[in-house]
This record gives sequence, structure tokens and C-alpha cells, in this order.
Amino acid sequence: MKDIQSSVDSRGIAIQQVGVREIHLPFRIRTKEGDVQQVLAQICFTVSLPQEYKGTHMSRFMEILNQWGDRPIAEPEMEAILDEALVRLSAASANIEIRFKYFIKKVAPVSGKASLLDLDCCFYGSKGKDTRFVFEFRVDVPSTSLCPCSKSISRYGAHNQRGVMRARLRFRKGYECIYIEDLAELMERQASSPLYPLLKREDEKYVTEHAYDNPKFVEDILRDLVIAFRALPGLEWFSVSCENFESIHNHNAYASHEEQVV
Amino acid sequence: MKDIQSSVDSRGIAIQQVGVREIHLPFRIRTKEGDVQQVLAQICFTVSLPQEYKGTHMSRFMEILNQWGDRPIAEPEMEAILDEALVRLSAASANIEIRFKYFIKKVAPVSGKASLLDLDCCFYGSKGKDTRFVFEFRVDVPSTSLCPCSKSISRYGAHNQRGVMRARLRFRKGYECIYIEDLAELMERQASSPLYPLLKREDEKYVTEHAYDNPKFVEDILRDLVIAFRALPGLEWFSVSCENFESIHNHNAYASHEEQVV
Amino acid sequence: MKDIQSSVDSRGIAIQQVGVREIHLPFRIRTKEGDVQQVLAQICFTVSLPQEYKGTHMSRFMEILNQWGDRPIAEPEMEAILDEALVRLSAASANIEIRFKYFIKKVAPVSGKASLLDLDCCFYGSKGKDTRFVFEFRVDVPSTSLCPCSKSISRYGAHNQRGVMRARLRFRKGYECIYIEDLAELMERQASSPLYPLLKREDEKYVTEHAYDNPKFVEDILRDLVIAFRALPGLEWFSVSCENFESIHNHNAYASHEEQVV
Amino acid sequence: MKDIQSSVDSRGIAIQQVGVREIHLPFRIRTKEGDVQQVLAQICFTVSLPQEYKGTHMSRFMEILNQWGDRPIAEPEMEAILDEALVRLSAASANIEIRFKYFIKKVAPVSGKASLLDLDCCFYGSKGKDTRFVFEFRVDVPSTSLCPCSKSISRYGAHNQRGVMRARLRFRKGYECIYIEDLAELMERQASSPLYPLLKREDEKYVTEHAYDNPKFVEDILRDLVIAFRALPGLEWFSVSCENFESIHNHNAYASHEEQVV
Repeated sequence: MKDIQSSVDSRGIAIQQVGVREIHLPFRIRTKEGDVQQVLAQICFTVSLPQEYKGTHMSRFMEILNQWGDRPIAEPEMEAILDEALVRLSAASANIEIRFKYFIKKVAPVSGKASLLDLDCCFYGSKGKDTRFVFEFRVDVPSTSLCPCSKSISRYGAHNQRGVMRARLRFRKGYECIYIEDLAELMERQASSPLYPLLKREDEKYVTEHAYDNPKFVEDILRDLVIAFRALPGLEWFSVSCENFESIHNHNAYASHEEQVV
Repeated sequence: MKDIQSSVDSRGIAIQQVGVREIHLPFRIRTKEGDVQQVLAQICFTVSLPQEYKGTHMSRFMEILNQWGDRPIAEPEMEAILDEALVRLSAASANIEIRFKYFIKKVAPVSGKASLLDLDCCFYGSKGKDTRFVFEFRVDVPSTSLCPCSKSISRYGAHNQRGVMRARLRFRKGYECIYIEDLAELMERQASSPLYPLLKREDEKYVTEHAYDNPKFVEDILRDLVIAFRALPGLEWFSVSCENFESIHNHNAYASHEEQVV
Repeated sequence: MKDIQSSVDSRGIAIQQVGVREIHLPFRIRTKEGDVQQVLAQICFTVSLPQEYKGTHMSRFMEILNQWGDRPIAEPEMEAILDEALVRLSAASANIEIRFKYFIKKVAPVSGKASLLDLDCCFYGSKGKDTRFVFEFRVDVPSTSLCPCSKSISRYGAHNQRGVMRARLRFRKGYECIYIEDLAELMERQASSPLYPLLKREDEKYVTEHAYDNPKFVEDILRDLVIAFRALPGLEWFSVSCENFESIHNHNAYASHEEQVV
Repeated sequence: MKDIQSSVDSRGIAIQQVGVREIHLPFRIRTKEGDVQQVLAQICFTVSLPQEYKGTHMSRFMEILNQWGDRPIAEPEMEAILDEALVRLSAASANIEIRFKYFIKKVAPVSGKASLLDLDCCFYGSKGKDTRFVFEFRVDVPSTSLCPCSKSISRYGAHNQRGVMRARLRFRKGYECIYIEDLAELMERQASSPLYPLLKREDEKYVTEHAYDNPKFVEDILRDLVIAFRALPGLEWFSVSCENFESIHNHNAYASHEEQVV
């Protein structure tokens, strides 16, 4: 049977990325406790294609991914997946992005009741035959923000709203990526208040007053995130944004920043 | 050229709805001022298919729709579109759903500054050869809600958030559907506060204090919407829901209700 | 601490549904093999509220849900969750909708290579103090459709595309709901061809020719689904639709049907 | 009334981007014929914030945008909007992204019937006090792709599907951006076939055979787009991707490439 993909291409164009997208698979992520958490992964997986070949072999991406459903994934496994792609697809570089919801335990501040909060996370990795492995961890942490202007000018009350802080982190070689649990906690501390799936009345009182005592613009949250990230051991680069779903508007307030950590 | 669609089908199954979906077209909607507002419409358009035919003629839906881009659409035109479908597609019944963003003018409560607020709207119509024309108007109105429990139990502050009130209305024959502008205003009065795209500081103070003075659960907003709708002249049936994007949770509070008005 | 929710409401309006929405939690679903599959659930959970109470107790929904993460869920457990809601929230009726991606194993038709296909599923349940438990199972099955008209009128080729068949099924009391695996297989047989995440070249040849040998309009797929569902033992009611993401248009072809099975 | 935003911030962090997001407004876009097309715009609008200020003035973004609803927008107006932001918000740099659906006329290849096809477009602009104005035009063009492998190995038929080609273009100073209409036509020529909202039977035959005569992998479409873009007068940089919604899989095939044009 003819292998059209392997036929010669004469256009002289090497393709930077070609592969598969919007794949859903069950995957397993290592947790801080050394356990694993099964997640629903959404995957984009590509390789480069030399100019002399007409096409890549799409089914091999699926064959590689199908082998990884049972093994816990973290930074080293991301590199192993890319290594496999480099070999099996005879590629000069490979990229993978695995998005998933990860659950962390939240303990209500007064009642102590526990519940599970969902965070949108992403493991991104790239590697080339001649370029080192890059691993990037991305997480979206939802939180509350309370407006300092509204609090200051109003006789009582202050508008507040749900928002989301989004971070992308790359660590230096030799440094381990921070655990999702620890990163979420670090980020939540920069907002007016963390969110909790389960709050009893005594908790609601606490959260309401805590947010009111802790008013923050989208700019404040962003700046405090920048300060917190600069202090993370081994961090090489980060990008961070904060988006507040304003309760008094039908649009969002937004701030973003990225930097190479010196 | 063979017309497969018109060939005979022997399975004996009349299909209730068949047609086209996720069509985007520019449409024009009549405004309260007698003017028109051009909108981006997303359309689902179907007819019934008798058991004896293998298929409907999909291109005719597009031909009908292409003729309506220039003419202002309101309840009577919805019936005219359905009449055309009944004839051109030899159908016993027809349905159309036209979703669009409609802009209303909001005036900031203190500064008087004007801005445009987007509302998600939908015109739905159905008609059969032997059944009367049904017209349903749907609108989503965003607003602010401030939690009465949080206000009551906290020493200061109260959590509040953006929410959306969704209504579906059907009027009796002979009664005209309410204007979008009037319906939005009626619904906004049932929330803790309306939303505004543009607020200066003096407005923000007003909105903050107004919401604090007007705390409402999702249940309160829903009940007040029910009371308001029962008083609408000529209303025959309605369905209404309220969803609050809780600022202290990562999930939403929700209430819904529908009733035949006596 | 004051319990505002339990205070008396004098508006005289009983609310049909109030609760929580867009909750994400890990849940476990029973598989055909008697095993369990862990899924990412998205939940909407509501109860009715008598006219005399101002509000429901939102945190109790979360407390109930938090207890069900470890236990495999199927029809009987859906009823148990609703029973718990009726008691703990002193409600006259309760509803729950649990949406999740469920993976089934697909075996490539020639090479025999196995891979996992994701299906969007939903368990819906409702129960009242005085009304019996209703359980509805919903599934979206992706598939290929190849156009009979295009095949018939063209000298070669035929346009084909991905589509989705959506079913909602309710069984009579005493009959068990069909397994997801069996329902998906039954539905796939009504399309021009099933989809497979992993296909080698010999499989691609088979699937291409099989779809070409099996041309079907959206109407054909719908009718064959209706016939297949009518033959399901114990089925009381179903709703079914088919939507094809036409490869020659930027919109979709669509057909739907529902019926009470006699 | 206190202006908290203007108060001094001592954290020493200049913010790269702060502003408003997910704003919806009616805007007007210049067409090739010298006319205007009214569109529904979705806007993200930000400025940089010096380290000494606590916050930006969010309402001014809305005031600027509200003035642009009536004036046709193209590259020069994008710069004017940014200039206004630089002055009114005393900022060192500003960014704006305006996304909208734009309709182009498609003429069916045999019947000559006209219909409107929706394209997702975006105007992006950035400018700094000390950096030149950058304008980027982005467009998503839907099309059909037919698989060369499937055609080659199968006795008859070939799987085909809807796909989307996404382009981002930046032109050199002094060169005008290509018209949306011309760019769409250029891109459609690189796919197996263009899409049409309205096709009669004779057109469907033509499109089916044309796609079968013109099989292309996602890699082929991408390479031909790269060749076409390299020949565009004045193009400085482009990024392009192609994503096919495979009719035989539940995931997509994807290829992407970007380059600085020499």
C-alpha cells in the first residue's frame, strides 16, 4: 500500500509544527503527596517536518499517547514523551501541550470543612535534537477581588467579583517545578480572598470581612504576583495575568506581565 | 441530474425537524424608536419532512434567509419567514431561532454618561399548516446581585457578583411583544443593581451603595421577576432563570421557574 | 448567627428549581465490565423551594456531592443522591444533571489496533416526594456521514464529514438502562461509518470505502436511529438528533425527533 | 472624592498591560469596495502603567471606544485609537485587539448564486511613545480538505472535511494591508476547495469533483499558504496554521508555521 506521506516534496519548505489537536484522553498526574490524580487531558502534540517529506505520520502520535495513560506524568515524563516523538517520527523537534482540570483540597477558614476546587492546568514541553528540553507549567487560579476605589468612595459596601489569575512558569535546569498545590496557595494569597467550593455561614462571614479588609485592584494582584514569583527559587521566566469579571460591568478588568527572572 | 432528496423513502418515519444550523448572517432588528439595529444573527432553521420523502432541500433554507438580510425583523416578519418555508419546502411545520447581540443605551446614574450594553437575545418562531404561529422572545440581562446573608452576618462588606437573568416570553394573540429596551429595564429593576459599561467615580459610589441597600438572593431576584412578568399585559407563558457567578465560589447559584399565566 | 435563608417570605411564590450550577468534581461511573471509570463531572443540582422560605441552603448541595466522589454512580445511585437532597433540603422535588466525558475502546477495523474514543454523556435524574424517580441517559456519539446526493451526481468522490448523533433515553420502570458501550455501538451502526482515534493505512482504506458504500443524509441517520431505538427493550421515551459539520459549507445540517414509545 | 488609582505605588513594578477585556460593541469596517460593513466587535484594550501609579483609569478606555462606533475602522484608525489612549491615559505604550465576524460574498461555481460567508477576523495594533505603530491583521478562512492518502489507497472515495486556515499578517511600513476579500480568495485557493453557504446540485457536483481532483494534506495546504504569503508585496512577517476537523477521527490534524519575510 502506497505511503504518500513518505513521498518526496519539492516545495522546499520545512514545516515547524505538524500533528494532532483536541485529543481527549484520561491521564494521570503526580500529586504533592506522592500519589496520583487521574485527570481528563486535552492534548496538542506536534513535531517538525523536514522539507523533503510530503507528510508526517499522524497515527504514531496516537500510538505514543495511548501508552501514557497509565503512567503518572510530571516533568521527566514530559521529556520522555517528546524523546519518543523525536525518534518515532524522525523529527528535529517536538512540542506537547496537555491541559487538564486538577483538584486541590480547600479547607473552609472557620468551620474547617473540606471540599475540592478545580484548577485549569497545563503542562507544556518542547525539545529538539539540538535544543534542550523546555518545560512550562501553566495554571489558572480563581479568586475574589474587592475594589479599593469602590470601598474608599462609598459610605458602605464595595463591589467585588470572581476573577482568575493565570500563570506560566519555567524553571532553570536543575530546579524542580513547584507543586500545583503550593503554587495555588501562593497565588491565592495575592488576591483579596481565596475561593472555596463549600462555605458554612461562619466561613462566609470570615471570607466577606477578609476580602473587605484586603481590597485590591487587578493591578495590585498582578504586582503582588510578580513579587511572589520573583522570590520563587530557580524560576527562569514567568508570564502572569489577572482578569476580574467585574460585578458592575459586563466586561472584565485585565492586567498582564511577563519577565525573564535575573 | 438526479434529485435523490425527492426519491421515495419506505421507512415510514416522518421527521419532526430537519434543516440548517449555526448559520451566521447580518440581520436587522426593529428598535423601540422605530429605527433598525443591525445585528450579527446566528440561526437554526428547520421544517418537518413527510415520511414519503428521502430528504429536504437544504439550499432553499439559505435562499430564504438570504432575502431577509435587508428587511427589519420583528414578530410579523418571523411569521412571514416561516410561511415562506412552509410553501417553498412543502412542509407541514417550520421552526426558526435567530440569536443575536442587541445593544441598549445605558445612562450612568450620576454623571449621566451614556454607553452601550450588549444583551444576548433570541427570536424564536414556529408555525404549522394547521397550527397557529407561536412567537417567543428570549433575552439575557446581566446584572449585579449582593448577598443578603453575607451582608447580615458580616460586620462590614457583603459579597456581590455579576449574574445573568434569562427570560423567555410568549404573548397572547393580539398583544404585541414588549420592546427589548423596556423588558431589559423591567428586569434590571429586580436585581440588586443594573450593570453599566461606563461608570465614573461618582457613579461607582452610587452603584456600590445602591447594591448594598438592595441585597438579593438568586431566589429573591427570581421571585421579583415572576411578579413583574405576571403583571405584563397579554403575557401567556414565561420561563425565567437567574444565575449568579458567585464571587466566593468557583460555581454558580441558580434558580428557575416557568408558568402559564392565567 | 442569623439564618436569613430560613426567614419567612411573603411573596407567595414557590420556586420550581434553585441550587448550584457549573460544579466540577471527579466522579466514578460503572462500566459494562463491572469496573468503574473515573470521570470529570460537571454538575447542576437543584431542589424546589416552598413559598414560605426566603432561600435554600446552598452549602448542603456541596456537602451531598462531596460524599459521592468515591462511590460508582449509575441509575440507583442517582436516585439515592436525589433522596438525600429531598431530606436534607426539606424539598418537595429535586433534579440533578451530571455531564461527563466517558471513554470507550475502539478497535480499528483491519489492523485491530485499540484506542480510546471520548463520548459526551449525561446522567439526568429527577424525583419528587409524590412523583416517581425519572432517570434519563444522554450521549453524544461522533461519527462520519457521506452525502448520497454528492455521491450520486458526481463522477467521483463524495463530500463527507464528522457529525454527532445525540440521544436522550428514558426506560420504563423495571428495565435497566442500556450500557454506554452498547448504545454507542448501536448508534454508530446507523452512520456512514464509526470514528476511530487510531487508524493505520489499511484501516483508513477500509473506513473510506465503507463510508462510500454507505452514503447517508442527516435524515437517513436520524430515521435509522429512530428505528433502532424503537426496538430497544423497555424504552419509554427518546429524543434524538443528528448534526453534520458539512465539509462544503460553514454551517451544519441538522435533524431531530422525539417520541413516546408505545 | 478620592482618586485611589492616582495614589503612589511603592512596589516599584511597572505593569506591561492593564485595561479592559471582553467588551462587545458595534463597529464599522472599511470594505474593498470603499463601503463600510457594520460588525459586532469583541475588544481587548490595554496600556502600560508606570511603576509610580497604583492604577489605571478603566472608564477612559470605554470613553475612547464609545467614540469609534460610527467611524469606519482600518489601519490608520487603529493608530489613531492607540494615540488617543497614549495621551488620555498618560501611557508609554498601548495595545488593542478588535475581533469580529466579517462577511464576504461567495458566488456558487456553476449556478452563480450568491451568498454570504462569515470569516473570523481580528485587527491588532500596538504603539509606544518610543516604538513605531505595529498593525497585524488576522483572519480565519474555512475550507474543505480532501486526504491524498485516503484517495490513493482506496478503490473509491476519499475522506474529506471542513477545516480552517488561520493567518496573521504584518506589512512593512509604507505597504497597505491586503483587503480581507482578496486575502480570503488567496487562501481559499490553497485548500482542496473553498466553502459556500449556498450550493445548488450542479454546484455540489462541481465542488465534490474539484476537491477530489485536488487532494491535500494539512501539510500541503500549509506549504502552499507559505508560498502564497512569501509572494505578497510588502509582507514583513506572517504566522499561519491549518486545522482539519478530520471526518474519520474525533480529533483534528494541525500544522503551523511562522516566518520573518526577507
